[in-house]
Amino acid sequence: MAKGDKISMSVIRRLPRYYRFLADLHEKGIDHISSSELAERMGLTASQIRQDLNCFGGFGQQGYGYIVNQLRDKISDILGLDDCLKTILIGAGNLGKAVATHMSFESRGFELIGIFDCDPTLTGYELRNLYVQHSDDLAGFCKSARPQIAILCIPIDAAPDVTDLLYKNGIRHFWNFSHYDIARKHPDAVVENVHLSDSLMTLCYRAHHG
Amino acid sequence: MAKGDKISMSVIRRLPRYYRFLADLHEKGIDHISSSELAERMGLTASQIRQDLNCFGGFGQQGYGYIVNQLRDKISDILGLDDCLKTILIGAGNLGKAVATHMSFESRGFELIGIFDCDPTLTGYELRNLYVQHSDDLAGFCKSARPQIAILCIPIDAAPDVTDLLYKNGIRHFWNFSHYDIARKHPDAVVENVHLSDSLMTLCYRAHHG
Repeated sequence: MAKGDKISMSVIRRLPRYYRFLADLHEKGIDHISSSELAERMGLTASQIRQDLNCFGGFGQQGYGYIVNQLRDKISDILGLDDCLKTILIGAGNLGKAVATHMSFESRGFELIGIFDCDPTLTGYELRNLYVQHSDDLAGFCKSARPQIAILCIPIDAAPDVTDLLYKNGIRHFWNFSHYDIARKHPDAVVENVHLSDSLMTLCYRAHHG
Repeated sequence: MAKGDKISMSVIRRLPRYYRFLADLHEKGIDHISSSELAERMGLTASQIRQDLNCFGGFGQQGYGYIVNQLRDKISDILGLDDCLKTILIGAGNLGKAVATHMSFESRGFELIGIFDCDPTLTGYELRNLYVQHSDDLAGFCKSARPQIAILCIPIDAAPDVTDLLYKNGIRHFWNFSHYDIARKHPDAVVENVHLSDSLMTLCYRAHHG
């Protein structure tokens, strides 16, 4: 994607939504959709959709719209969903267990290859065909298996040391459920934060100030 | 909050972050902070912080900065975190279990009063001092207990019917982990979406186009 470095994060963040809507349309047997109908379904404008997709070359035909499975496959390619980024999960508590069992990693471009927790009572627990390993084995595992992505489902207090260890062992991409600010310490890390409690507090505000 | 209706969502979405940072500073024994130091810690500019807080009246003293616990309490008031919004959780699968056990509802302005699932084998399962109830009892529960907020940890296919039932029974606020677009059907609903797989796909893109 030659133009990749110029594309704004807000456009990038809309790509998964396009992918979801198109996959859903395809499953419903819809082969073709006009940009105005896609816009209406997604709560966007047709002009915004055209602008977004033009960042990647544009795929519609004037006056015809989009062929659903072609556009879905194209966006899947752009996102890299057919790849298998080697991924480890740190933290096998309630949240880690839910993430491990709930997410469709394989269809989202990831392959989960290891799960770690510092609690020895969890070692050997089976999750998604993997056995939870003790965090003491994390550095050795990184050296041999070379994971590219780490998912952090750990408390904020544990996050600085774990992140330093992972960074030292070559990991630069994080899906971060802890509230630790990874990018502040490691500015070259790529971090997607999931701040569940921020989302909940925002709902609280909106419930009071609706 | 007289000015509440004019405040942009991007400012509102930063409030929980301010709250987290200030609570963290307070826990570390820091009583006072300059706007420039708070800005540096949060990765914002001092000017942005002043602008954000001015939406709610402004709380700093020129040349002195902020008293940490005063500002934290003020933001807590604005967010409504001391309130107890009666909340129900629909879906007690892996994700619902994690949300029920992982989140600090009480300190975020919510009181979890009921958990429901359509799977009869889950009925009676204990989660956070509540027993999972069957979804058949959801409408009756809403009529008697009058919950204000619903958390949806259900698959997208189940979401339309469940949302209609909840809406019909007076619920207008949703914390939505399903990918169902509630606001499209019910434009007056207040919805905070948590799209975990969108976040994962965004990370996939960024890992490939870093």
